[in-house]
Amino acid sequence: MQSSDTPLRPVTFHQDIPAIRFIAQTRLPEEYVEESAYDIDRLADAIRCLDIRGAPALGVAGAYGIALAALTSTALDLDKFRQEISEAADLLRSTRPTAVNLFYGINRVLTAVEQEQTISAAKDRAVNEADAVADEDSRTCHAIGEHGQKILPQSCRILTHCNAGALACREWGTALGVIRSAVQAGISVQVYACETRPLLQGARLTSWELARDGIDVTVITDSMAASLMRKGMVDIVIVGADRITKDAVFNKIGTYMHAVCANAHQIPFYVAAPFSTFDEESEEADIIVEERSREEIAYFGGRRTIPDLVKVYNPAFDATPVSLVSGIITEHGIFRLPESLSDIRAIRQRS
Amino acid sequence: MQSSDTPLRPVTFHQDIPAIRFIAQTRLPEEYVEESAYDIDRLADAIRCLDIRGAPALGVAGAYGIALAALTSTALDLDKFRQEISEAADLLRSTRPTAVNLFYGINRVLTAVEQEQTISAAKDRAVNEADAVADEDSRTCHAIGEHGQKILPQSCRILTHCNAGALACREWGTALGVIRSAVQAGISVQVYACETRPLLQGARLTSWELARDGIDVTVITDSMAASLMRKGMVDIVIVGADRITKDAVFNKIGTYMHAVCANAHQIPFYVAAPFSTFDEESEEADIIVEERSREEIAYFGGRRTIPDLVKVYNPAFDATPVSLVSGIITEHGIFRLPESLSDIRAIRQRS
Repeated sequence: MQSSDTPLRPVTFHQDIPAIRFIAQTRLPEEYVEESAYDIDRLADAIRCLDIRGAPALGVAGAYGIALAALTSTALDLDKFRQEISEAADLLRSTRPTAVNLFYGINRVLTAVEQEQTISAAKDRAVNEADAVADEDSRTCHAIGEHGQKILPQSCRILTHCNAGALACREWGTALGVIRSAVQAGISVQVYACETRPLLQGARLTSWELARDGIDVTVITDSMAASLMRKGMVDIVIVGADRITKDAVFNKIGTYMHAVCANAHQIPFYVAAPFSTFDEESEEADIIVEERSREEIAYFGGRRTIPDLVKVYNPAFDATPVSLVSGIITEHGIFRLPESLSDIRAIRQRS
Repeated sequence: MQSSDTPLRPVTFHQDIPAIRFIAQTRLPEEYVEESAYDIDRLADAIRCLDIRGAPALGVAGAYGIALAALTSTALDLDKFRQEISEAADLLRSTRPTAVNLFYGINRVLTAVEQEQTISAAKDRAVNEADAVADEDSRTCHAIGEHGQKILPQSCRILTHCNAGALACREWGTALGVIRSAVQAGISVQVYACETRPLLQGARLTSWELARDGIDVTVITDSMAASLMRKGMVDIVIVGADRITKDAVFNKIGTYMHAVCANAHQIPFYVAAPFSTFDEESEEADIIVEERSREEIAYFGGRRTIPDLVKVYNPAFDATPVSLVSGIITEHGIFRLPESLSDIRAIRQRS
């Protein structure tokens, strides 16, 4: 296991081997296992089975995947080399066809590689570009953390949902990045991690990664959050986001419930997310929410929990109107919608 | 399996055998199994392991338990007979020492039996009194259902939490009794059953018993309820109650969250419960909420879902202030707190 003195990184690249090393997240918290992908077939498997998950982490995995394909290529001429890299990109894209960040990471390295005119230069360029993608993600998360920790009181009880953590990024995390930066700044932090049904990312991943770093964390069921708020046990809610339109924050199902309850108890409700999450030209009504399989709710650990003939409704995300969001913590500071819309557009056009 | 044309009864008494027959609820929904207790040791086991659960159902089981002990007694003199019955009562009480209804059912039959001066008369009296306890519970639930269905529109989408159903009573149910009476009255009903973490009574029991009776039911995770309300998919929330003080409704954890979210969406929030649930001289602050074991949240189907060192908070119930409750549906009609407090006291003193 990685030492808790070093930052938790779910995906790392080892150029000398070469290999991508990753934490097998589906086996957490029962066991901590790091595995190695020496080729992109193995990497594709790891992405498909969700051992590697989380939008920014998929971007990093995609970028390093192309670097791995470049380093392991035995092609002797440039055309053959480029063809191999292109096939590797196709394979990786096919693993999670709707993961925007995965495509972004793959394409960044692919575009860089195609500019080089020798195989040797292309291999070097692939590694450098993948490192750049990863380093940018680290910088973004640390910047989110810095901006976020400034709004917290010196002693703070934070409620979070799902896993917007290091395990979903290159390191540090978004919502959990704010928590890590707060701890680093000397703020006394106590975290309530909602278990996050149906897939329990809060119970399995958030509690694990915070406990690893020595941060005080307590797991509750999603349905307990409102009761804790009423008892005065929660000072702030911080969650991540999957997509932010001009009028709504899309995030893991259950986020909206926390926003409504926080609002009813006058508790600040913040979203922590990189600028790449903004889809500021779209509206809530434009977005189709993925409905996931019945089995995620109807079975658990191989045991049936719902009779076979009973219907199940399983939307993956919900939409929280921006009126319930106290602020969106980004790498460029904290924004409110709709007030900050023109500022957000200006920054997006600049980058 | 009982026919769906006959009312679902989790506990029945068969005088001719004699035996208590019960649905092994811990095995639902994986399999429907009826088991028989030919003696009170077996009945005590069934209560302890939660094959028989739900406050009113425990009252019925306690009453029939004393009747079973009476019928199976081989004592030849009255003192010995009374001693055996008294020991049976002690054993049954020890299974769930805080279950008020269990004690009520046991004591009702015990008191009746003690008034008889022959063993034969005492045996008859035990059965008759236990039947009376059971019949009263049936009448109460049907009356709750009748009062409740009158407030529903002709087509109605109802959200419920946990299992306030036939499986928790002698038959019909409280919150689910309202739903059954509505269906009987020709109202078109669609039910959303929240799965109810951590023990999934909504997924396992509510969905099973409604589907058995041909009622349209869809299971959702607890965290989806607010999102459904926002989408206009819920017309009314109806839940049960474990205890109602003058200022709050205590019910399964998660109930308060539904009340807050229903309120935020101007959706009526009703509680269905018998008068025996009122504890109208107490206040919320007087009640100590049971904290249940870590294992209920940290393990599922034998699989660990939370790292061993991580804390878990697991209160069994939450308190919903009466200001969020549109009405309490009882066998004597619908009441609001605090307005109806003196009416409730008057009815309680009369009975």
